[in-house]
Amino acid sequence: MRKNPGRRQALIDAAIEVLAREGARGLTFRAVDAEAAVPPGTASNYFANRDDLFTQIGGRVYERLLPDEATIARNQEGVQDTARYAELMHELVDRVSAFNSGYLALLELRLESARRPGLRAVLTERIRADIDANIGYHAASGLPGDATSVVLLYLALNWLILERLTLPGIFTEKEIHELVDIAVRRSLQA
Amino acid sequence: MRKNPGRRQALIDAAIEVLAREGARGLTFRAVDAEAAVPPGTASNYFANRDDLFTQIGGRVYERLLPDEATIARNQEGVQDTARYAELMHELVDRVSAFNSGYLALLELRLESARRPGLRAVLTERIRADIDANIGYHAASGLPGDATSVVLLYLALNWLILERLTLPGIFTEKEIHELVDIAVRRSLQA
Repeated sequence: MRKNPGRRQALIDAAIEVLAREGARGLTFRAVDAEAAVPPGTASNYFANRDDLFTQIGGRVYERLLPDEATIARNQEGVQDTARYAELMHELVDRVSAFNSGYLALLELRLESARRPGLRAVLTERIRADIDANIGYHAASGLPGDATSVVLLYLALNWLILERLTLPGIFTEKEIHELVDIAVRRSLQA
Repeated sequence: MRKNPGRRQALIDAAIEVLAREGARGLTFRAVDAEAAVPPGTASNYFANRDDLFTQIGGRVYERLLPDEATIARNQEGVQDTARYAELMHELVDRVSAFNSGYLALLELRLESARRPGLRAVLTERIRADIDANIGYHAASGLPGDATSVVLLYLALNWLILERLTLPGIFTEKEIHELVDIAVRRSLQA
């Protein structure tokens, strides 16, 4: 197995684009090599098999979706009230939506996980950990609402992003903005 | 183009199973013929092309997801309060979840619609009409809440069903039940 970390990462990033564009069946080592513009046979030196590649894509998408240090620092300043909660959710929805191919790749992974129990286990663990981290972050932040608010927003905003990216004619950008605001307000009420 | 309506419907139902199981790239006329156990070449006599087949799948999934007459009649009886709203949403979540392949096929259609503008237009119109019908049904019902409550529940419960069907280890069945109750209560608050 080859070890160049930069090359490995470039191959996984290329695989995200292939998966989002072509679907799970289109994700072949050959397609990844072509997308990454590397010699044929390169990807097969970096991944044990397609299962391995699918699993590593999941981890990499989550890594790329994390906010940067400046965003994290900014989010922790000032009053932690409902208006701030709404700001955070607007920032989150826009950040995730901007990584269109990553979000679509995660959906393809979900559908593929019905066919790959190993992938399903890894994705389940990763997403559950992400929800728990959000609940923990919220509890420590002083923001209004409870753990259930966090889960309700996770559910509603994920589908809103799905709608925005796959069928952008359903809600206008103005409606999306208003739905984020109102989802925050109503989710926080006990 | 062949016209036997029963045969056409059986082919579309077979196509739903193929799409859910194999993904969009696996949806070929040959695979549909095999799934429906009809002679090779049958599906190609009933659908102009794969675009036509994708589009007809969308309509058929929605048709099969409609509640039956008895359920509709039962839903309109008695007090239309928050508890009744929660009952309706439990019934909806369970009805949609029970048609596992239909729900997964709709997700495949969403992802495929990024590649097929005609399919995207049909799906957008169908889903927007479905949301508007839900808002109209709600307004006429006397149930608590407003149009935004309907949209928030549409968002949150769709992702909850997605979670339940693709990564069933994330939330337990008990958590899902509680999340439906609490999503209803909080979505109804203005």
